[in-house]
Amino acid sequence: MPVNYATPAADQLFPVAGVRLGVAEAGIRKLNRRDLTLIELAPGSRVAGVFTKNRFCAAPVHVCREHLQQEGIRALVINTGIANAGTGEPGLDAARQSCAALAKLMDLRADQVLPFSTGVILEPLPVERLKAGLPAALSALKADGWHDAAHAIMTTDTVAKAASRKVGAGGTAATITGMAKGAGMIRPNMATMLGFMATDAAISQPMLERLVKEAADESFNCITIDGDTSTNDSFILIATGQGTAKFESITAPGWDEFKQSVIAVARELAQAIVRDGEGATKYIEIAVAGGRSVAECKAVGYAIGHSPLVKTAFFASDPNLGRILAAIGYAWNNDPGLADLDDTKVKVWLGDTLVAENGGRAASYREEDGAAAMKPAEIRVRVDLGRGSQSANVWTCDFSYDYVKINADYRS
Amino acid sequence: MPVNYATPAADQLFPVAGVRLGVAEAGIRKLNRRDLTLIELAPGSRVAGVFTKNRFCAAPVHVCREHLQQEGIRALVINTGIANAGTGEPGLDAARQSCAALAKLMDLRADQVLPFSTGVILEPLPVERLKAGLPAALSALKADGWHDAAHAIMTTDTVAKAASRKVGAGGTAATITGMAKGAGMIRPNMATMLGFMATDAAISQPMLERLVKEAADESFNCITIDGDTSTNDSFILIATGQGTAKFESITAPGWDEFKQSVIAVARELAQAIVRDGEGATKYIEIAVAGGRSVAECKAVGYAIGHSPLVKTAFFASDPNLGRILAAIGYAWNNDPGLADLDDTKVKVWLGDTLVAENGGRAASYREEDGAAAMKPAEIRVRVDLGRGSQSANVWTCDFSYDYVKINADYRS
Repeated sequence: MPVNYATPAADQLFPVAGVRLGVAEAGIRKLNRRDLTLIELAPGSRVAGVFTKNRFCAAPVHVCREHLQQEGIRALVINTGIANAGTGEPGLDAARQSCAALAKLMDLRADQVLPFSTGVILEPLPVERLKAGLPAALSALKADGWHDAAHAIMTTDTVAKAASRKVGAGGTAATITGMAKGAGMIRPNMATMLGFMATDAAISQPMLERLVKEAADESFNCITIDGDTSTNDSFILIATGQGTAKFESITAPGWDEFKQSVIAVARELAQAIVRDGEGATKYIEIAVAGGRSVAECKAVGYAIGHSPLVKTAFFASDPNLGRILAAIGYAWNNDPGLADLDDTKVKVWLGDTLVAENGGRAASYREEDGAAAMKPAEIRVRVDLGRGSQSANVWTCDFSYDYVKINADYRS
Repeated sequence: MPVNYATPAADQLFPVAGVRLGVAEAGIRKLNRRDLTLIELAPGSRVAGVFTKNRFCAAPVHVCREHLQQEGIRALVINTGIANAGTGEPGLDAARQSCAALAKLMDLRADQVLPFSTGVILEPLPVERLKAGLPAALSALKADGWHDAAHAIMTTDTVAKAASRKVGAGGTAATITGMAKGAGMIRPNMATMLGFMATDAAISQPMLERLVKEAADESFNCITIDGDTSTNDSFILIATGQGTAKFESITAPGWDEFKQSVIAVARELAQAIVRDGEGATKYIEIAVAGGRSVAECKAVGYAIGHSPLVKTAFFASDPNLGRILAAIGYAWNNDPGLADLDDTKVKVWLGDTLVAENGGRAASYREEDGAAAMKPAEIRVRVDLGRGSQSANVWTCDFSYDYVKINADYRS
């Protein structure tokens, strides 16, 4: 069960002019499951993406990078069940075949199609089954297909994740709608497992490419569930240009508001992934300030957010807060610049309760305050490193029996 | 239950001339528990140690570093229950008081005593109780006290860890005996939670200091249970010089054999810690070869050894081996030098079964071979990075329900 998150109703997900979505059951890995999703884009749409930095990156990620070398993307094909990662040359061939087959049905070139896969690594993609499912998905295409599609891209997710908003007015009015999936192998480095967002605004290609990176850095690149950076992380931002707003330069009226809305939607999706983390019972924000760089603040946030000891303490609502100090103390494993961190300058709060300062427990700290602060389903850990003015947030969840259960049972 | 490990019988732990050990119940955190251990050293003993690099390092670690500035160490005092870490100035004062109290009873200077603590972080050390327990521990001192002491330093350990051997003959004969503890918060960086080894050989101070580092690097610095580097890691090597062997230079006869034996005992203790890792049901060796540096091989070993997804797959005996590839692929998070790793050059074996090559699943790989290779309680993962001649081993364990249970319940 996700922590304080429910999928928006279908009518809360605003269609984006120029985008249609369709799903089908292709039997990729199991029968009777919607496991194939198509996204069709109107001519003139611009697309930008960021992808995993895992060196064993999946075949579809390679093909996406190739196809995004030029403009003119008109369709995305997404399958669950098999990640098509760790599949070598045959995997690349399967990803290209998926694109070619869809292109043929849609009368496009193969390089106008982007492929995405998520599921088990190291197993071959049954590309014939995928191809056989394409006509059904094509005939299901519809403008209000976001709700169905958000469900069809799920793997161990317990709820579909989607977000949508309308922004601006008059000449700057735009719609932004997105969906994402991911519940395990989540510590995105550039992007999450799979995230797709679209807007009807017109945005120049260079601005779109900067925007997708910035949105990823402020959202998907701040979350972790288990520290495992996936082979398939992909985050795609689509601008169809079918709406009113036109943003051809960063001085265009409404751009800042639009940009903040794109980031807000991306963050909503990213946080939804954490709220639905495998086995999650708690949602935890780690806010690190007082660092010399954003990078070192993130390094501290990730050290805390990845520590199995911290995460099991949250699961148990046990204010065993020395574990947080220990994690801060070894964060320089993540960022060597922290090797000279002065532990007597560090302050740690749990919610509003000051826990540690001057290298030890705060004089004002009382165990019962810590215990009370550990109880809620949403918890904020605040750290002040006391050595600079930079800050960063990391969002994560706790570590429960169910994480082990889900990952010991997955595949079976 | 530990994986294929049992504490040696008391008579298998050879006394080391010049070393006596005594334990007592001091009620540090709970009653009726042996929680205080003394080690008395004969005059002329040399001592060298390596300690945690955690920036929130414990008060006793600070004091050990100070006291090791000069020779003449004559006693070690070790308590469990409270780590005396994250305790600021009062913690330092408590550690110093422990040394002073013991020194007074033994007619020594306070800086001839080394203090060690292990247990809960962020809580004050009840130093009066510790001091009150010293006379009982002193009167219990005995040369064959290793077995008792190995039990008295346990926290969440399920078995005591100790190892002992006699090495050399005639003028190079020496005895080496050691003990260690640690079951969680284990990813030593310089040393493990607590490890103590002693030999009756005479060893020059510079050689002893090099030896303790080398032994730590080949043993405790190769293990991980949960990736959490402790605040209290300490590994101490004692040379009493009360035996036959005298090693005043590295060309001394018998030195190489002696050195290898010290490393072997340290490795036996380190591996025992992993075999008794919190909730462990499997013992896993990760052997990484073909790297450009030892550091990058270790980075890959730790990426695999820390991955909750890999560890839960081992727990389930599920050959979901793509998770290992994914971990190799993001190991450059640990060592940026791996950012140019060519995934098509990497090979992965599970036991003797070739699993992956050429960027994907090996043509010869069969699921049933993988399933069979996942079954044993001891598993060897072998990785060839295909880009150099360096290698390194990492030892770890799986991730089970019991890890969560132990760490959700610890303290309570």
